[in-house]
Amino acid sequence: MYRFDKSPVLEVLAGSRQPIPPVWMMRQAGRYLPEYRDTRERAGSFLKLCLTPELAAEVTLQPIRRFGFDAAIIFADILLVPYALGQALTFVEGEGPRLAPPVDRAELGRLRETADRSVVAPVFDTIRLVRSALEPQVALLGFCGAPWTVATYMVAGCGTPDQAAAKLLAYQDPVTFGQLIDRLVAASADYLVEQLSAGAQAVQIFDTWSGALSPEEFERWCIDPVARIIAEVRGRIPDAKIIGFPRGAGTSLLRYADRVPVDAISLDWMVDRDYARDIQSQRPVQGNLDPHALRAGGDALLRAVDATLDTFSSGPFIFNLGHGILSDTPIAHVEQMLARIRGR
Amino acid sequence: MYRFDKSPVLEVLAGSRQPIPPVWMMRQAGRYLPEYRDTRERAGSFLKLCLTPELAAEVTLQPIRRFGFDAAIIFADILLVPYALGQALTFVEGEGPRLAPPVDRAELGRLRETADRSVVAPVFDTIRLVRSALEPQVALLGFCGAPWTVATYMVAGCGTPDQAAAKLLAYQDPVTFGQLIDRLVAASADYLVEQLSAGAQAVQIFDTWSGALSPEEFERWCIDPVARIIAEVRGRIPDAKIIGFPRGAGTSLLRYADRVPVDAISLDWMVDRDYARDIQSQRPVQGNLDPHALRAGGDALLRAVDATLDTFSSGPFIFNLGHGILSDTPIAHVEQMLARIRGR
Repeated sequence: MYRFDKSPVLEVLAGSRQPIPPVWMMRQAGRYLPEYRDTRERAGSFLKLCLTPELAAEVTLQPIRRFGFDAAIIFADILLVPYALGQALTFVEGEGPRLAPPVDRAELGRLRETADRSVVAPVFDTIRLVRSALEPQVALLGFCGAPWTVATYMVAGCGTPDQAAAKLLAYQDPVTFGQLIDRLVAASADYLVEQLSAGAQAVQIFDTWSGALSPEEFERWCIDPVARIIAEVRGRIPDAKIIGFPRGAGTSLLRYADRVPVDAISLDWMVDRDYARDIQSQRPVQGNLDPHALRAGGDALLRAVDATLDTFSSGPFIFNLGHGILSDTPIAHVEQMLARIRGR
Repeated sequence: MYRFDKSPVLEVLAGSRQPIPPVWMMRQAGRYLPEYRDTRERAGSFLKLCLTPELAAEVTLQPIRRFGFDAAIIFADILLVPYALGQALTFVEGEGPRLAPPVDRAELGRLRETADRSVVAPVFDTIRLVRSALEPQVALLGFCGAPWTVATYMVAGCGTPDQAAAKLLAYQDPVTFGQLIDRLVAASADYLVEQLSAGAQAVQIFDTWSGALSPEEFERWCIDPVARIIAEVRGRIPDAKIIGFPRGAGTSLLRYADRVPVDAISLDWMVDRDYARDIQSQRPVQGNLDPHALRAGGDALLRAVDATLDTFSSGPFIFNLGHGILSDTPIAHVEQMLARIRGR
């Protein structure tokens, strides 16, 4: 039904508008799917699911089989990089991730200088498995967390509502914090290069918490490190396709677009529509349906899908959510969204 | 030392730049002050502290005595309005507020159509007590929560990280949600008019969670209701001075400035500096030091204060934080901030 010779996602990343925008969803392999919950159960732990290639490949493919999305994103977690740097990583059911011990000046000295490749190697195997199972027109995406966002977990030892611990370290001891960021830049660049070499056709850099920072701190801890990762990756793979997702960056988005040479910018759902079109005049965009509208369904969902299409579909555009799908989202709402996008 | 015949805060709200920007802090009467913790202890409960005029006046005045701020903001809580509409309100130590039962379509029918004035009347007494104790050059501010923000608590029954419950109701049943907003518009306008009549010289409308919404929802649930409150207040008090604080509004801030006729806009610390200057070219601004920079102190604080002053001090400007002061902020850091602002 939706057959293309080339991958429409990769066409958009190359700057070309598609007649029907390609679509995938952040966190599309997730708890809202019964088949995911089954596989997750079988794996025993979230970390084991991430690091067992057969299982990770299976959950990566599930949403493609069910919905025919135009991209698969490899199932993994942004905290595998700190794990490979030597922090202990556990996922406490219902409480989120724990990294121990939290990084401060002393602990930074005890972490590995460079990531232990063997820790993340299963992710590259997953990529090979998924690529061999995917139809050629479905793009395979890899990803990593941006250094700032990953550092917020490393410094606090867990998720935080306001990223207070990392902000305090960055303000009070920018030398130590900068060393942590440098280590993450190097480890993330290596990690993305290996993902691309294993068969990922593009990678997304998730800066989930970039909205917590003042303009000067955003420049220093979001724009600069992500630009350095891209320079390093492109130094080794010149045509590497990279999507940036500076969630919550708000009025700093145009500065990000100016300074970070990503192939596309993924937008959250809060961006003003005129401002969003300004971004799209510079770069392909991806986004940005409110996940709560998808959760709500009905007329509200159709209106929100239409508003997104009306904003972006005259240019190069990948339909996505403005953040990950909520785990209590009914599957019928995803079907309703896809019918609207593909049926207009 | 800082004596003025007129109130510099009110001068700024009238559009006039001050040679030294006046300064106050959101949540300046709060747990970071030992004298506040003493009075809070004496009150027994947070709600009693809000609703006992002598105690509320005392904590309102404490930061003025200690720091000589240019404005006092009446000690109260944005959830007094739902309390006056008939929702049960409690503050659970260390857990935040609880409103019961949560509002849905059925519960909305059981709430009062209009607020019970006697519930909030102590706030007006507090205003009279504080005004009589303040030097004339210190402005006295009242406030309320914006309807959207207050509704997020009323619908969830508590604070929420992503305002999911209110967003879902707004998407799935906009008629019910709109009736709740209408009730809050009317109650908030009455409440602000009474605060101004009792001696508040300006009022601030806090839209703490406006950053959660898509552009269309922001227009409908933030811009429109706040504009209606202002029209209602100015219909009864034509020269009422009003500050708007759409926290997290990001790229929707210019639209807010276009459509909401506030006398000044309070900005959070995330706003890009060029974008912030565009706002200030239209309207006096207030803000926007990162509370985490104040918490951090030292060089980082001085740099952040300087960046704020460099951005705004050539126009009409009230120095403030980008959100409330963090409760673990050392008092010495507040003194350091004030010395920098007043000593430049």
